[in-house]
Amino acid sequence: MKADYNNIKVIGFDADDTLWVNETYFRDAEQEFALLLSQFETPNKIDQELFKMEMKNLPVYGYGVKGFVLSMVEMALELSNHTVSSKTIEKILDIGKDMINKPVELLDGVEETLKSLSRKYRLIVATKGDLLDQERKLEKSGLLHYFHHIEVLSEKESANYSKLLAHLDINPSEFLMVGNSLKSDILPLVEIGAKAIHVPFHTTWQHETVSQSVADNADYLTVDSINEVLNYLNQ
Amino acid sequence: MKADYNNIKVIGFDADDTLWVNETYFRDAEQEFALLLSQFETPNKIDQELFKMEMKNLPVYGYGVKGFVLSMVEMALELSNHTVSSKTIEKILDIGKDMINKPVELLDGVEETLKSLSRKYRLIVATKGDLLDQERKLEKSGLLHYFHHIEVLSEKESANYSKLLAHLDINPSEFLMVGNSLKSDILPLVEIGAKAIHVPFHTTWQHETVSQSVADNADYLTVDSINEVLNYLNQ
Repeated sequence: MKADYNNIKVIGFDADDTLWVNETYFRDAEQEFALLLSQFETPNKIDQELFKMEMKNLPVYGYGVKGFVLSMVEMALELSNHTVSSKTIEKILDIGKDMINKPVELLDGVEETLKSLSRKYRLIVATKGDLLDQERKLEKSGLLHYFHHIEVLSEKESANYSKLLAHLDINPSEFLMVGNSLKSDILPLVEIGAKAIHVPFHTTWQHETVSQSVADNADYLTVDSINEVLNYLNQ
Repeated sequence: MKADYNNIKVIGFDADDTLWVNETYFRDAEQEFALLLSQFETPNKIDQELFKMEMKNLPVYGYGVKGFVLSMVEMALELSNHTVSSKTIEKILDIGKDMINKPVELLDGVEETLKSLSRKYRLIVATKGDLLDQERKLEKSGLLHYFHHIEVLSEKESANYSKLLAHLDINPSEFLMVGNSLKSDILPLVEIGAKAIHVPFHTTWQHETVSQSVADNADYLTVDSINEVLNYLNQ
């Protein structure tokens, strides 16, 4: 297997749920939200409706906590037929602020993996989401010094990656991406001739899932934990 | 005067209120907001309180429409002592969506200035705000093809500019920034040894104002309209 990665010079990392916990906080927030509105609907129905609302608003708000909070507020108005109390709206705003202010919780093995890889490779971060949020999380994470470049993308499609690699003068065949989302971190890279290693996180946002048949046909590697990446690269 | 700009190779442009109208839409939104809450307070007081709320939330939400809307919602709850109606909250969300979906209105002379300068200089955009929002506005503006690089910054302080110029391999002495905000587009550039031309917009957000004495001591040029920039550069 090692032969495959001999050309690699630059390694890109996704951030949320690859370097640190993220999706878990959204799940927790959704639970809190369902509890706040439990007089109007079942948790399961609230979950489904909130997801639909987020998808409806995604082209307008994009990714990140702020858009998520705005969707929760809109959902609360709609689900309650405009009878939701101001106190509940306030609690929704607080859920958002708590999410933004959460400490950064690194995933197992991240620090040692970056430390080891940074000796031989140029490391970059390619993440999606809110610019300020992501910069702040990187700052809090204490990982900034491992990275030569941080890129926050509004979308993670092949074209976005091609543009990023061209801008950084990186040949796709010399680039390896590591991330938890097949849809955002793996398949677009395989498509442009780069390498990709999938490190699944226990929770995946519904919007990030892909059908198994699509994933099966693509050429990438899956490992259980980020430090297994070290087994496939020259140290 | 021309001698001063002989070294310039790259010209950076601010986007909001330099290439297109922006602040005007925030002022309009504030007026709508004050009208929605007119039963609770005078427009003037609402304006002042909203600004304070935005400043309180700026470290959490950053710049952009989404944070502005969240601040309006929080302000509505507070100003009304939690008696504001759900319909009013809904209208506040609608104000935000309308802002995001507004067509891009180019300022006078922008297109001809960029067209002319792009023949001799590398042009870039350095803007603050929401990533998706700014990308979308550039797309809608039809100006994208004039620019070699687009950078959305979470803050526009000297350090952010230094990092950007280093990353793009631009010597500060060869860089000219054009923008409407003394605080964000002019003074930080003068500080790092780059050139700057100030093109005031008729409306300036209170947060972007600087004291006249600070501005007086800095070395930059002020012009009335963006196409006057052409008078100072070799064509």
